[in-house]
Amino acid sequence: MTDSSNDDELRGATAFQQLHWLASGRIDSVGLTAACSAAVARRNGEINAFLALDDSAAEQAQASDARRREGRTIGRLDGLVVAIKDNLDVVGLPTTVGLPGRRHRVASADASAVARLRAAGAVILGKTNLDEGALGTFSANPHYGAVNNPLRIGYTAGGSSGGSAAAVAAGLASFALGSDTLGSARIPASHCGIYALKPTHGGISTRGMVRAARRLDSIGILARSVEDLSIVLQVLDAHDPADPRSRKRRVALAPPDWEPGRLRSGFVRDLASIGVSPQVRALFDSAIERVGGAFGHRVEVDFSDYDFARTRRAALLVMEAELGAELHADLADTQHPVSPRLRAMLDFARSKSAVDYAVADRVLDAAVLKARRLASEIDVLILPTVSHGSYPLADGERASDADLTSFASLAGCPAVSVPMGILPDGMPAGLQLVGAPGSDLRLLELAGICAATLDATPCYPAGG
Amino acid sequence: MTDSSNDDELRGATAFQQLHWLASGRIDSVGLTAACSAAVARRNGEINAFLALDDSAAEQAQASDARRREGRTIGRLDGLVVAIKDNLDVVGLPTTVGLPGRRHRVASADASAVARLRAAGAVILGKTNLDEGALGTFSANPHYGAVNNPLRIGYTAGGSSGGSAAAVAAGLASFALGSDTLGSARIPASHCGIYALKPTHGGISTRGMVRAARRLDSIGILARSVEDLSIVLQVLDAHDPADPRSRKRRVALAPPDWEPGRLRSGFVRDLASIGVSPQVRALFDSAIERVGGAFGHRVEVDFSDYDFARTRRAALLVMEAELGAELHADLADTQHPVSPRLRAMLDFARSKSAVDYAVADRVLDAAVLKARRLASEIDVLILPTVSHGSYPLADGERASDADLTSFASLAGCPAVSVPMGILPDGMPAGLQLVGAPGSDLRLLELAGICAATLDATPCYPAGG
Repeated sequence: MTDSSNDDELRGATAFQQLHWLASGRIDSVGLTAACSAAVARRNGEINAFLALDDSAAEQAQASDARRREGRTIGRLDGLVVAIKDNLDVVGLPTTVGLPGRRHRVASADASAVARLRAAGAVILGKTNLDEGALGTFSANPHYGAVNNPLRIGYTAGGSSGGSAAAVAAGLASFALGSDTLGSARIPASHCGIYALKPTHGGISTRGMVRAARRLDSIGILARSVEDLSIVLQVLDAHDPADPRSRKRRVALAPPDWEPGRLRSGFVRDLASIGVSPQVRALFDSAIERVGGAFGHRVEVDFSDYDFARTRRAALLVMEAELGAELHADLADTQHPVSPRLRAMLDFARSKSAVDYAVADRVLDAAVLKARRLASEIDVLILPTVSHGSYPLADGERASDADLTSFASLAGCPAVSVPMGILPDGMPAGLQLVGAPGSDLRLLELAGICAATLDATPCYPAGG
Repeated sequence: MTDSSNDDELRGATAFQQLHWLASGRIDSVGLTAACSAAVARRNGEINAFLALDDSAAEQAQASDARRREGRTIGRLDGLVVAIKDNLDVVGLPTTVGLPGRRHRVASADASAVARLRAAGAVILGKTNLDEGALGTFSANPHYGAVNNPLRIGYTAGGSSGGSAAAVAAGLASFALGSDTLGSARIPASHCGIYALKPTHGGISTRGMVRAARRLDSIGILARSVEDLSIVLQVLDAHDPADPRSRKRRVALAPPDWEPGRLRSGFVRDLASIGVSPQVRALFDSAIERVGGAFGHRVEVDFSDYDFARTRRAALLVMEAELGAELHADLADTQHPVSPRLRAMLDFARSKSAVDYAVADRVLDAAVLKARRLASEIDVLILPTVSHGSYPLADGERASDADLTSFASLAGCPAVSVPMGILPDGMPAGLQLVGAPGSDLRLLELAGICAATLDATPCYPAGG
């Protein structure tokens, strides 16, 4: 497994496929980890997906291989290689959240989700780049440099989990953890042509994550197939009494009975009215056409009673205020360098009153109510993940990036992004499926049907 | 049923007893309603429990009697008389929340809880007095006058559901609805010697309630027996898709299996350390002694890791900010008279930043985590409802009134207050039982055992 084209095939395979190869002995974890590490060494200078590597990765892989040889693998992810967004604690590594002032904040314990991956045998490769303070959709970090889209250098990988998405898209890890507060896992998945799941709110513990907005924060999973999302979800979904937002009711281990022919799929009447670009609309229409009957009964849904821009502003204030609370100690330190953009956002939150926060928090309830009204009409909502494709980093961040993803976040619903094809400019775009809270596995099953029909994953890993 | 002593016996009976009398034909709803109305006419000048009466009460009672005669009663409360706290909408009546500027804000629909009572046949008698803006524990309304404790005029009935508690204690209604955000139903129940339930957060819809703090707001039930609380809870507990905080999982209709001998009851190690007065401590110890083995295995629990004062300040800021958001339109109207006290509280919230709100909201999570830690050690927490008894209105409100009740509110747990006896000054005090979320019926069953043992309800109705 030293031949480079073999390495590329190995790294580009899905986690599911890698697990089969590990189980059959075709590969071992040391080889997989070495292939990923070598690819990081070759490509990270350009992509800038990783901020830090875990020195113990090779050792972790050796331990996994030893377990496997002795017939005592510890979990269903044993030997896979995972990249962790740098707003999640990994023991022994700093959690920077993209802020240089936290460069020496070495975590003394794993985040809950990281601990579960480790307990399931995964090899932690390193920490991935992200927007400053995890507040953004662009991953052009002013201190650590921009993440580049592996499909086209100079283009955004999306954010804030841009490094995690780029690592998965470039075959630098078997899968990755991100976070998803308003779309931070789904947006980069759409831009990088991979898969992402934001589970039902409260399903995966967010303990050990630097909070962006507690009523919205979710762990996001980024992977190269729907099956991978499903395995990782089942490892991560568990009640955590130490996370105030963790739900007690687990996601069912098997999808509930459902009859695809009876499925009611909701489509937004007029995608242009909610800002979707003509190119993404054309790709979306063609994808829906191809998936065809698998969407069951199609229902047109109306979003004219839902104010995307107002909700976006309210969510931003809540996130800015919560980030101000979360980073309070860091920001009190005047030595702590913060970009003018983030400083302005935090100052804005400080200029708004507690009453303004309460008003904004109430605005967010509109999404919960809208989702409940929709739930009486439809089982799943189908829409693009982002209203446009990846765009040049030089253009600067677009305010509307999270408009289509934030709805599921605000409503606490699970949502999946599936690559739906290639836009005229050669970049990918994602199809988004949003389900009712708790319906994560049914949603993944439907996403699997879409994935099988669309087969739209670009060829990975891109480049050597 | 015109004899006055008969009327007193009728009005002072529990709702459960009244229902039996209605069913057996010993009384009818017209008689019950007339007895309550006559008592209000006689006593409200002094007690000041009601702010408004529903002109249609007699008509509602006639309709109930007609249904019963025709053998088609519509629900388990058919013909009972209920008083509604004036922060809950009742169609055709204003919802003042104790603010004179809202005197003409006539509700066009019933609050969800009120609608469910009406659908179950209850007769709505009127709206009850409360703290200004429902923000307080004292019910000395600066615009409408103070509610007087029916057990001793000149003493506080507690708050903010003081009017509802006084109405129930004085036999002016079969039972009452209040609200309970930090203890607003349990505190007046303790001071007036009656029973109150704050259900699991999200169990009863709060739609149509003027919000105090959405993450804490609950409907409170005030009654003269535990059985009454249980009947009313089962009528009210239902998922409401239009309330963003409503839970989908209902309270079980029957209590879960539990073995009283195996019950683990938690007692706070040092009640003095959490501010409980010597008089209440002595009464509490004697009550616990009398209930004896029904508390099962007794466990000492430690609250030294929980900061009551810090939590109180954080909760107050959240409530003040939310009230500012809720009353935004009213307060923008400069004609709207607001007391200097409430104005100062709202100004305080406006002087605090959105970041301060986010910090306060995070402090509240401490209660959720503390309750979860406790849940691994105990099934029920037993403590006094308030650290002191009712006190003279002339003394002014005490800041610590809600310290012992707020814990269950912040943790989303159900809590019941049961009269535990009479303090040396002749006023009653309540025993509080706090259970895990969803355990409302088990908690009521245990409260029923306490009530049967303690038999501490003062003689009602007090006076003619």
